[in-house]
Amino acid sequence: MSPLRKLLVDVHTHVYLPRYASVLRSRSNAPRIFTRNTPSGQSEDRLLILDDEPSGGRPVGGQYWDRDEKLKFMDRHGIDISFVSSANPWLDFLPFSEAQTLAQQLNADLESYCATGPTLAPDAELKRLYGFGLLPLVPGAPGESLPEAVLQLAAQHPHIRGVIVGSRGAGSGLDDPALEPLWAALAETGLVVFLHPHYGVGAQAWGTRDNGHVLPLALGFPFETTTAITRLILAGVLDRHPKLRILLAHSGGALPQLSSRLASCIDHDPVLAGRLAHDARWYLGRLWFDAVAYGAAELEFVSEAVGRAGRYGGTAAATQLGGRKEGASRMLFGTDHPKWRSVVENLEAIEEVGTWTEEDKAGVQGWNALRLFQL
Amino acid sequence: MSPLRKLLVDVHTHVYLPRYASVLRSRSNAPRIFTRNTPSGQSEDRLLILDDEPSGGRPVGGQYWDRDEKLKFMDRHGIDISFVSSANPWLDFLPFSEAQTLAQQLNADLESYCATGPTLAPDAELKRLYGFGLLPLVPGAPGESLPEAVLQLAAQHPHIRGVIVGSRGAGSGLDDPALEPLWAALAETGLVVFLHPHYGVGAQAWGTRDNGHVLPLALGFPFETTTAITRLILAGVLDRHPKLRILLAHSGGALPQLSSRLASCIDHDPVLAGRLAHDARWYLGRLWFDAVAYGAAELEFVSEAVGRAGRYGGTAAATQLGGRKEGASRMLFGTDHPKWRSVVENLEAIEEVGTWTEEDKAGVQGWNALRLFQL
Repeated sequence: MSPLRKLLVDVHTHVYLPRYASVLRSRSNAPRIFTRNTPSGQSEDRLLILDDEPSGGRPVGGQYWDRDEKLKFMDRHGIDISFVSSANPWLDFLPFSEAQTLAQQLNADLESYCATGPTLAPDAELKRLYGFGLLPLVPGAPGESLPEAVLQLAAQHPHIRGVIVGSRGAGSGLDDPALEPLWAALAETGLVVFLHPHYGVGAQAWGTRDNGHVLPLALGFPFETTTAITRLILAGVLDRHPKLRILLAHSGGALPQLSSRLASCIDHDPVLAGRLAHDARWYLGRLWFDAVAYGAAELEFVSEAVGRAGRYGGTAAATQLGGRKEGASRMLFGTDHPKWRSVVENLEAIEEVGTWTEEDKAGVQGWNALRLFQL
Repeated sequence: MSPLRKLLVDVHTHVYLPRYASVLRSRSNAPRIFTRNTPSGQSEDRLLILDDEPSGGRPVGGQYWDRDEKLKFMDRHGIDISFVSSANPWLDFLPFSEAQTLAQQLNADLESYCATGPTLAPDAELKRLYGFGLLPLVPGAPGESLPEAVLQLAAQHPHIRGVIVGSRGAGSGLDDPALEPLWAALAETGLVVFLHPHYGVGAQAWGTRDNGHVLPLALGFPFETTTAITRLILAGVLDRHPKLRILLAHSGGALPQLSSRLASCIDHDPVLAGRLAHDARWYLGRLWFDAVAYGAAELEFVSEAVGRAGRYGGTAAATQLGGRKEGASRMLFGTDHPKWRSVVENLEAIEEVGTWTEEDKAGVQGWNALRLFQL
């Protein structure tokens, strides 16, 4: 297959598998799915993710749990392959033992969702559906349980190519030293870590005006991702686990724009001096970024910020990175379906990046994903 | 004077005037200046801005209050003109009546600091020092007091060309409807609003590892600025006050990178639908951004995000905006002196923006500031 042949791969597309939706329906506080009547008298399922969520949550339906609807959505937009992931809040609300059991069940469900789905072409090996699995990464998770879950996932479920992970870890964040064996296992298996926000950062600063979901979604989500990956960098996790592969939701939030400021702050801080192996900007060249930023200027800038990473290296490995092409090679198309109606916006943004070649664009549209997920 | 003649103007440089430093010395809780002995037995003044600040605050000295030291710093780096502003936390910790009195005194001090300082050349009218004044923008400020203070400032202090403003307003944020007369007065007088962070946003998400000042400074500060300007946009303040001129600290924080996401969130939100006159990205073309981002890619991107604003207009006025040149024309060199040792970094970043012409760079280095401050 020529690298210029168009292949569209969606790495940011969510599901609530039927088993998960049943769990949400059984609950009386958030996260939960409840049924209410619309003003016109129709019955409507609504999803409440957080108890204090504005607007009484959002409508939810088959687009979350019905595989045929996912495939129809893909067909409508010419998406060849989707890497589906459970939507937040994953298993965060469950005690460890329940989270562990449900993770195993949902991973088996997801493997079946992908494996029994269509192939890319009648004679193709590639499937149209792959997935990110779940880990019982909740407070109280015993030390060995997480790397064990990773090894089991990698061994048993060939269509699960990564895990989706929130920012709270086992309750103390992803920079918790207790998670070292988890990062080691993820690096060893090659499963991709999809770092995705849920709680938001900054809620105390939203004020009292009714701005709907705008501040938590437009700012709180990317602030959370930015904070989580920054804490991982500052903790040296990327230094200690060079093979760990992390994909950041929403193009890394604000990390690219704040990365030189971050480097400057680290340089000026006596507590951090000498802790990290590299300038903060170097680590952007170690990460992957979905292309879910809704604008061409944003995408171009992210690829710049990733592409310059090699300049901040200093080792032979570091200088192999670098350049705008390298930047674009670490970005991957995504839709954020079904929460967002922005497929066209995100596709147009890729087309409109003036500094990307056709080959760069084809990479972002699909080929980069096949490389990242080793397919 | 040719627009290509080099003129270096620093719009982001702080002072604690002697009167303000005395107030801080008299206090027993933050913000305060206290004296302690260093491990080598020397006496050292330290500034504690927040009670829970890591590392016991930071050293503070004449670089904050001595005008000769500011001028020496300017000479050392070839800075022709500085627009000095009080460093945070301004008057935020005082009850209104004290804040009002101290603001008047400090504004008179600042006028004298600038007016009795040197001129740019023996026969020049331009001074080397101009300033941003203070407003008694604290909880309990009576409705009329703020516009009155603005009008008084503009009438009495010709070297004060703007005001520095934090994000809390009179206690409820800058989107407080009670502040409408303030914005109207600022728009009327043409004083530039320098929006600067202090409290940070996101502290609850920093975790328990000791990362020094890095997370609050590298992320919390820009998150705060991003939140404050977003709330102003969502409240319609920029729609209602087209002449209001706002300069954002630290290149607008994360606003440029999150601006298309913000636009998309607004488009999808029933609460916001129809509230604003323009797409969120349009408002970036209404703002000014300091060039304090420590990297060329960041500066180039901000100018892109500002330059594209006109595309999201729709009125005749809107389409007059637009283009990379317009983007660069709204960016202004700054140092963040004396808190930061980054003058060279910021100057190099401007030089290294590949898409800026020499004229664009000369604008960012100095001429844009003269236009913005109407000198």
